[in-house]
Amino acid sequence: MRMFLVAQSFQQVIEVMGTDTFRQENASLLVLAAISLALITILSVWKLKQFKYRLVNETGGAMFYGMLLGVAVRYLQFDGAQGIKNHTCTCTDLNATPPFVMVNISSQGHWSSPLDSTSQMGTFNLDVLFNVFLPPIIFYGAYTLDQKRFIANLGSVLTFAFFGTLISCLCIGVCMYGFTRLMVLLGQAADGDYVLIDCLLFGAITSATDPVSILGLLSDLRVDLDLHTLLFGESVLNDAVAIVLTHAIATYDRKGTGHAFDPSAFLHSVGSFLGILIGSFCMGFIFTIITALLTKFTRLRESPLLETSVVLLLSWSSFLSAEASGLSGIVAVLFCGLSQARYTILNLSAEGRSRTKQLFEVFSFLGEIFIYSYMGYILLTFPPHVFKALFISGAILTVFISRACNIYPLSFLLNLGRTNKITCSFQHFMVFAGLRGAVAFSLAVRDTETEAKQTILTTTLLLAGFTIWLLGAAADPLLHALDIRMGEDSEEDSKDFSSEVSMRGPDTARGLWHNLDHKYLKPMLTHCGPPLTELLPQWCGVFARIFSPTHVQEDEEQFCEMELHTSPLNLDKSEPPPTPDDSGSEPHDDLLEGDLGLGTSPVNTMETSVNTS
Amino acid sequence: MRMFLVAQSFQQVIEVMGTDTFRQENASLLVLAAISLALITILSVWKLKQFKYRLVNETGGAMFYGMLLGVAVRYLQFDGAQGIKNHTCTCTDLNATPPFVMVNISSQGHWSSPLDSTSQMGTFNLDVLFNVFLPPIIFYGAYTLDQKRFIANLGSVLTFAFFGTLISCLCIGVCMYGFTRLMVLLGQAADGDYVLIDCLLFGAITSATDPVSILGLLSDLRVDLDLHTLLFGESVLNDAVAIVLTHAIATYDRKGTGHAFDPSAFLHSVGSFLGILIGSFCMGFIFTIITALLTKFTRLRESPLLETSVVLLLSWSSFLSAEASGLSGIVAVLFCGLSQARYTILNLSAEGRSRTKQLFEVFSFLGEIFIYSYMGYILLTFPPHVFKALFISGAILTVFISRACNIYPLSFLLNLGRTNKITCSFQHFMVFAGLRGAVAFSLAVRDTETEAKQTILTTTLLLAGFTIWLLGAAADPLLHALDIRMGEDSEEDSKDFSSEVSMRGPDTARGLWHNLDHKYLKPMLTHCGPPLTELLPQWCGVFARIFSPTHVQEDEEQFCEMELHTSPLNLDKSEPPPTPDDSGSEPHDDLLEGDLGLGTSPVNTMETSVNTS
Repeated sequence: MRMFLVAQSFQQVIEVMGTDTFRQENASLLVLAAISLALITILSVWKLKQFKYRLVNETGGAMFYGMLLGVAVRYLQFDGAQGIKNHTCTCTDLNATPPFVMVNISSQGHWSSPLDSTSQMGTFNLDVLFNVFLPPIIFYGAYTLDQKRFIANLGSVLTFAFFGTLISCLCIGVCMYGFTRLMVLLGQAADGDYVLIDCLLFGAITSATDPVSILGLLSDLRVDLDLHTLLFGESVLNDAVAIVLTHAIATYDRKGTGHAFDPSAFLHSVGSFLGILIGSFCMGFIFTIITALLTKFTRLRESPLLETSVVLLLSWSSFLSAEASGLSGIVAVLFCGLSQARYTILNLSAEGRSRTKQLFEVFSFLGEIFIYSYMGYILLTFPPHVFKALFISGAILTVFISRACNIYPLSFLLNLGRTNKITCSFQHFMVFAGLRGAVAFSLAVRDTETEAKQTILTTTLLLAGFTIWLLGAAADPLLHALDIRMGEDSEEDSKDFSSEVSMRGPDTARGLWHNLDHKYLKPMLTHCGPPLTELLPQWCGVFARIFSPTHVQEDEEQFCEMELHTSPLNLDKSEPPPTPDDSGSEPHDDLLEGDLGLGTSPVNTMETSVNTS
Repeated sequence: MRMFLVAQSFQQVIEVMGTDTFRQENASLLVLAAISLALITILSVWKLKQFKYRLVNETGGAMFYGMLLGVAVRYLQFDGAQGIKNHTCTCTDLNATPPFVMVNISSQGHWSSPLDSTSQMGTFNLDVLFNVFLPPIIFYGAYTLDQKRFIANLGSVLTFAFFGTLISCLCIGVCMYGFTRLMVLLGQAADGDYVLIDCLLFGAITSATDPVSILGLLSDLRVDLDLHTLLFGESVLNDAVAIVLTHAIATYDRKGTGHAFDPSAFLHSVGSFLGILIGSFCMGFIFTIITALLTKFTRLRESPLLETSVVLLLSWSSFLSAEASGLSGIVAVLFCGLSQARYTILNLSAEGRSRTKQLFEVFSFLGEIFIYSYMGYILLTFPPHVFKALFISGAILTVFISRACNIYPLSFLLNLGRTNKITCSFQHFMVFAGLRGAVAFSLAVRDTETEAKQTILTTTLLLAGFTIWLLGAAADPLLHALDIRMGEDSEEDSKDFSSEVSMRGPDTARGLWHNLDHKYLKPMLTHCGPPLTELLPQWCGVFARIFSPTHVQEDEEQFCEMELHTSPLNLDKSEPPPTPDDSGSEPHDDLLEGDLGLGTSPVNTMETSVNTS
């Protein structure tokens, strides 16, 4: 039935299109314009980088060129409208009377002119762009993430993502309310134009940092890997929080409960966030299980093309399935990417591994450019923009204030439990790297009915542009000023990190995770690890026999061992096999989760005890 | 201005969409459905092939699953309609009154029910599918084509593509007119339902073989390379003829000139075909020049990711630019692929070469599946189907008749001039391998106003299904029966083919092409070949100095030499350098074009004369 709804919604939409040639050329031109923008962005940013001018990255460049296109379209608006009219006349000559005529029955004045509805086009195209290009970006980010560090920092990441975003939202909301009061005092707005709930909505929309722009920034700078993990992990997970918060506040607003705080609704939001997080996690993991079992139990590895296609399509499905069932696609594809890099990659052929990585790299690179050039385009062609200077400058100020209120106190609390502290310079950089982007835009664009909401949209777009261009450009000098290691190599780093902890027994959560991962998931999903028949109780006999890694091939075995000492980033390179003294002992790779993900792991004093065991 | 038109056409289209969640889930579901179909197709066809059941290929499988989805959608139609209604009601609750209401003013009865307009959706989505997925398919086919063979067989390919398609069109048109007369006699149709021009239109639509299904078939079977070149080359180029023919006949029909033959209009069609062919060729070549110069004169090769992205986007642009300017995108991307594989590939880094090939391979593989599953879906959900048993069986019969009338006489004439004859078994297989597909469908779907045209569409779709499934399945046994070499390896074959001809001096067209290619294009576009300063006259001094391959690097030089002895199919594999006695002499790779492309090249008696020169 759902498929039918899909068809229905599309079919209504196409009736108004003109003759074939017109329609066909449109489709070509649309794709051609996107491709030309991408080409110009790639070449000019690359050229700038060649001159050691590292202040511009692809994200900012793409947005800039999108804006140029927007200017061109706005400038040529009158010509275009004439073109449309001429075209409609010729339609009748060709015996192709359009079967439908549109009648505007909207009561809202600001939707009257034909160009105004670009906004609807904007949101629709953005949805398609999101569904097509966002999954590879997040997947590639997760796939190439240092997993050990992610697990080690998971507690901190979740704290920043959940409490940090909540603090940001409240802080921005309250500060912006102050600014709107100031606007009323200065006579720039009428009393009642901007109520508290609008300000909180703005807070929710702009509370989350954007994974795409953060990834774009981090991939250029190659910062310290712990900092990378904290920023990227936070930016992915806090989107889920922001989406839930925005939804909750928008629902409040519609219900008219207005200014009063409702504790039950707050609890509902928390529950809803946790539900979405867990649901999305499961969705991502289900698709990894499917992929891993498919690549484990079939001879798909004989054809790297099929292997790559299947991994690509199944990983993509995790995002789409989550979105279609009301969960967070971004979170689902994050966990899918992380778990694919942990399990499925062990079942792939060497060529399949390198192909998969390269394919996602290209998709991710192009997707980022397409999404941001489209955002730049919308920034100048979206009609109901409302520019309020005080609101905008207030927003830019509160972005820093809220980020500081979020990072410094939470880092202080987290450092109480972390062995590997979040240093002051890391904290400063995290406050600074609060880039906003596509996700905030997609939240803001969904409701532009009142003037307040149009102000929110305009401000959000400008905020995204400001943070991406200015903060993006200032990141490189700031990293130097803060003396944060740059050009970090993951291999070198994973060595000073290898084989610690694990001595505390299976009674902690870390031990449970190790047990689950090493004793059950890995043997079940890959050809590595001990046979399940040894680990599972007797009554699971049939299950254990089916899933046991019995058909291990020599090259796979070697790879299983190799994998323990390398990060997935380097899996596709041909690396020397590990030295015998390492591979002989019990694998240590899963034993570094740290103190419940609070980042305690690099306890170097414990290294010797492991080696002597 | 064009960009504005694009925006306009889209914006009108989106107004009718419902609330955000609905819209957003739709976009996800749409992509998810496509991906699921692709996954099912890949896995089931792969599984069937594992059981040595080679009768089904991806194209047929994809179409079959698309049809299954079509059945499901049709079956659930009533539920879906209810869903839409419920949805519209909830819209008003959410304060999101749709700003537009559609009023159907169409006078054509068969467009009344909402599902009917799926056809329009069909054509629109097909355009997008074509613009996104067709270019990589054709590009990959051309990129991996044996160039020497293509040039050697170019004359034959053009003969089949132009005269063959014309013969096919006339033959099908006349035969089908006979069948429609029979239908009138048997009382299955009224006199005047099907006029000659309708039959000729059907002939034009179904005259061309389909490059996508032919490539799908050939890549599975790996037939003799000459046969591969003839079939693939013909299928790509005859699309241009079919498009021009269809357009010409449709214009006749609208003008009402009706039954009379108009020689001036015929000449106009020929001129139009040649114009489109040459224009598309130039368009494809322009994009190769841009790519080659970009990769030659910049340090883009230092980043394989950028290199691959630029080649991908520029090659894609050749298709889109040609389509947008009314030329044939398929022909443009064919020549772009051929010339990229000849020039640009020499400027790429080793990783860039292998990445580019793999990327296009994945795109091509998935694109084929998406296009054909969509065709299968449309086959069962497109509403104005008119099934006429006699018309359909007549069409299936005439496909073979027309193919025989085209291949046998033309092969006979061509063999008079060819040294390397088209054998009888090749001719039989060529008659048999007349697969129709996506291009015919896209031509048929553009006009479904009269019952005759609906019959044409239905018959075209069934013909595509019939040829893809039945002929596709029978191809493997037939090749065995005809004793045509299978599992052909390009390397082995290019050896018994190396270094002949070239002795006839530069007065023939072949010599001119060699001069142009080896003395001007290669030195200008790549780092290979002699410096331009030696070849060009004095007054071209500046130009020659700029474009001369002065910055040759060692690895590039080696590759330039290596390339002379391998086909582009194997360029990404690391191959041993050529033996000194080969590389020392003047490169022979360009000297095998044969007698004006009529396929004379393998004159083994001349080999000694080259070696002694």
